[in-house]
Amino acid sequence: MSTQTGVPPLIQVMRRRPAARTPVWFMRQAGRYLPEYRELRASHSLLELCRDPALAAEATLLPLRRFPYLDGAILFSDLLLVLEPMGLQLSYLPSEGPCIENPVRSLQEAQSLAAVDPARDLPFVLDAIQRVRARLSPQAALLGFGGAPFTLASYAIEGGSSRDYAHTKRVMSMEPEAWRILMERLVDAVASLLHAQVRAGAQALQVFDSWAGALSPDDFREFVLPHSRRLFDRLKDLNVPVVHFATGSAGILELMKEAGGDVIGIDWRVPLDRAWQRLGDVALQGNLDPAALLYPRPLLLRRVDEVLDRARGRPGHVFNLGHGVLPETPPDNVQAVIERVHERTAR
Amino acid sequence: MSTQTGVPPLIQVMRRRPAARTPVWFMRQAGRYLPEYRELRASHSLLELCRDPALAAEATLLPLRRFPYLDGAILFSDLLLVLEPMGLQLSYLPSEGPCIENPVRSLQEAQSLAAVDPARDLPFVLDAIQRVRARLSPQAALLGFGGAPFTLASYAIEGGSSRDYAHTKRVMSMEPEAWRILMERLVDAVASLLHAQVRAGAQALQVFDSWAGALSPDDFREFVLPHSRRLFDRLKDLNVPVVHFATGSAGILELMKEAGGDVIGIDWRVPLDRAWQRLGDVALQGNLDPAALLYPRPLLLRRVDEVLDRARGRPGHVFNLGHGVLPETPPDNVQAVIERVHERTAR
Repeated sequence: MSTQTGVPPLIQVMRRRPAARTPVWFMRQAGRYLPEYRELRASHSLLELCRDPALAAEATLLPLRRFPYLDGAILFSDLLLVLEPMGLQLSYLPSEGPCIENPVRSLQEAQSLAAVDPARDLPFVLDAIQRVRARLSPQAALLGFGGAPFTLASYAIEGGSSRDYAHTKRVMSMEPEAWRILMERLVDAVASLLHAQVRAGAQALQVFDSWAGALSPDDFREFVLPHSRRLFDRLKDLNVPVVHFATGSAGILELMKEAGGDVIGIDWRVPLDRAWQRLGDVALQGNLDPAALLYPRPLLLRRVDEVLDRARGRPGHVFNLGHGVLPETPPDNVQAVIERVHERTAR
Repeated sequence: MSTQTGVPPLIQVMRRRPAARTPVWFMRQAGRYLPEYRELRASHSLLELCRDPALAAEATLLPLRRFPYLDGAILFSDLLLVLEPMGLQLSYLPSEGPCIENPVRSLQEAQSLAAVDPARDLPFVLDAIQRVRARLSPQAALLGFGGAPFTLASYAIEGGSSRDYAHTKRVMSMEPEAWRILMERLVDAVASLLHAQVRAGAQALQVFDSWAGALSPDDFREFVLPHSRRLFDRLKDLNVPVVHFATGSAGILELMKEAGGDVIGIDWRVPLDRAWQRLGDVALQGNLDPAALLYPRPLLLRRVDEVLDRARGRPGHVFNLGHGVLPETPPDNVQAVIERVHERTAR
């Protein structure tokens, strides 16, 4: 098959065009499973890494240095950084995850959220992107990313992680005006951030609606889809492929496609071929269980092959995990997956 | 339609026979959302309530006293109690959930697990069942319950709750002999407990594989299904209907049916009609989002109606939530759901 010279395979495949191989990257590929990342973190907090463009660029490139055949580099940053210039006080508690001291639960609190100017408020993100692009192999594509409005709203409302999203669902249903304003401001903020990321050099984008799978399909359709759609609509003129990712999303895949995205990112709970039967013409990203990277090598490779077999004959498969790399993962297993995917799909 | 006199509607419907109405009960219907339950808990720990048959019977009956039209009473007990006589040290840390001090991760640890004799080891469970049956209205059915081997194994291996089940998946894949022995002993223990519950008076059973949705379909088929099937096979001669319940299970519904159960319990993430299209002839239990009980009344009732509409024309729908009642739930909303279900489905 012919391939377009100079365009990285990841971008080609996201556009469902022929490419030399199935591209592969990993969510959280720069993460605690890498000794060189843990070393960086020994002297810097997560937020320090994110806010220092040289360190953020370094963290972004770490996995590419260890695994030079990775097809994508995802910007090292944090989904919740965009909430700070809006007025939310973000911190990370050791082993407890994100904490927002002043969560948004009322109309007044939603109305007080400020607009985000990425060049003014998050310049380190854009600077990091430029630094990475200057050093990245032309065969690898740089992905920028942002949060979908529901997932960001869930953090803003809960004040951190949640098991059942009770506060979020209550505001969504009981405070429609607060919900509308919060979702609109989040869409505005993320849209402007993603525009700025592409201007700075991001070649593709991933929108994380990580927790959208907590919603019933009816609630997603009614309270979330219109807002997500406005976000994806505002990314169309950027002319870069956009991944729409969620976990636990087996019940809302069609609605995610309806909301937007060139590529639907799915977790490991739905067989890839069944997802494609349901969704038809769209690229898919996924969907190896991150835990498979803890398995004995033969079982790991069997699970990789099963994903590849289910994608066979379809254009537009980006190999990835169904969620982020687990901290317990042996780095050699990441290398083994990259090799297996490339070997089995080289054209 | 004719109904069989004396058999509670819940039992009739679980057997997909005609009944006077769609029966309704709630997972965790005796729980922190009830002031009278919080009062019981003010002077007794969770495990104290479970181990005292009079208190466990009282907790079981609390919701029936407040909501006399509930069609089912589920035994007040704890999934993990069965692990104690096997040799695991169980405690509940305030606001942190279950904790097992000596988790099972090696072959030797699995081999050291003892067999369970319910009459000797868990007599309070059986005594509580007898007390409840003596006081329960004949229109309500008493459900016993136990854990499916995967979910119990995940607690035994992780030592508590988990986000990604990394330890469990590692033992499952890396220590096949330890896994097999652990799963077999759990099946033996739960099967004997459920047999004893039915002899004591339980009229139906629910097997909770609450966390099976963490598995990929391939892993469920390979590592879990054979063990779950052995459990369900051993319940067949009891001649009571059995519910097989999991959350996040959209990718494994067919495999759950294959493993066994007269009724498949599904969470709120899959529309009921789509689940039935996939599963064919089996009763279904569910599947209102527990968070819907926090919604304004009109939206709550709309969501109830949507579930009922998707079940219309099918025998064998047991109305329930997709998971347990949330602690924030206003009790009046539970009453409103019971009334709505009965009004809309009275024959």
